[in-house]
Amino acid sequence: VKGSGRTGRRPGASGSRDKILSAARAVFSAQGYNAATMKKIARHAGCDAALIHHFFGTKRELFDEAITLPYDPGEVLVSFLSGERREGLGTRLMEFVLSRWETGESRGVLLALLRSASSEQDAREAVHDLLVRRALLPSVRAMGVPDAERRAALIGALFVGLMIVRHVVRMEPIASDSRERLARALGPVIEHYLFDDLEHDALQ
Amino acid sequence: VKGSGRTGRRPGASGSRDKILSAARAVFSAQGYNAATMKKIARHAGCDAALIHHFFGTKRELFDEAITLPYDPGEVLVSFLSGERREGLGTRLMEFVLSRWETGESRGVLLALLRSASSEQDAREAVHDLLVRRALLPSVRAMGVPDAERRAALIGALFVGLMIVRHVVRMEPIASDSRERLARALGPVIEHYLFDDLEHDALQ
Repeated sequence: VKGSGRTGRRPGASGSRDKILSAARAVFSAQGYNAATMKKIARHAGCDAALIHHFFGTKRELFDEAITLPYDPGEVLVSFLSGERREGLGTRLMEFVLSRWETGESRGVLLALLRSASSEQDAREAVHDLLVRRALLPSVRAMGVPDAERRAALIGALFVGLMIVRHVVRMEPIASDSRERLARALGPVIEHYLFDDLEHDALQ
Repeated sequence: VKGSGRTGRRPGASGSRDKILSAARAVFSAQGYNAATMKKIARHAGCDAALIHHFFGTKRELFDEAITLPYDPGEVLVSFLSGERREGLGTRLMEFVLSRWETGESRGVLLALLRSASSEQDAREAVHDLLVRRALLPSVRAMGVPDAERRAALIGALFVGLMIVRHVVRMEPIASDSRERLARALGPVIEHYLFDDLEHDALQ
């Protein structure tokens, strides 16, 4: 029964793959890369660790697959921004990003990255790559402002801090805030990072 | 030779204690709580793991000692703020905080906390306790603004994100930015979190 599906695996294989990927996301996001063993992921997926190795190879390769989003985050952001007026943009952007990243698969991907980034060089690079290089930098460039790298990195730092405080440290009242409320508080900050002269408050 | 020093330990004990604490800070901040074993810390301190157990007890107890600052961060901040004009306050505050936290012992404490907070419940509570409850909340309260908890938590999130992106993920150009430059970019954000109506950008 070969030839079903793009990789020619037997039927049922893609179901198992998806189950393993979602188990991997769950375990990586709850425990971080280091503590997440293949055994724990196998137990969570209800399969044998050997099957995971068969499908994905090493833990590092499994991690890479697990943090792959089913869409291009840069494209999504750029197309959102293209239709927007500048006034109040920060708040709408923040709400859009939060509603995307705090739900479904993206939430697991983001938490897996943030939980792992503090100890794993690979995950550190993945944070930079996914959040800044692929998502924020193309979006900031699309706004036509100078110094796009610095602006994208500052928005990335805002986002990393917010997600860690909200979902990992679970610091109140931020942990329980609605997305709308958070977006209102953070919107002007996004606009500052996007549009203001970041050197304006010159010292001396 | 009893009675030398407040705990009555033999001479040289406080030197060993300090050496172990600074080794613990180095290992916790490089690897996070989970990966930092007593053995690694002992190797770094050039002593026996048994000596660490003798002085500090468990790893958790050693961690608590290692993240204890020699000053009260809230007092320091409140006294800094008390002499300041409101204009440009954010930039000066940011520069003051960065120059304090990015150097010497505080740097090790902060990195140990941030590297550990993603996986350890204890470290998560310590982040909230040290950064927000003890340092930021008293300072924001001293400004006499409403909704101090939310403001302190938002500034905490800014700081967590900045430190992780700058020192853990090492994302450019933020990783190489001077403290002065960062302070200028982030100053207006601090002022927004401190003084603005955080609900002003109402949706609908």
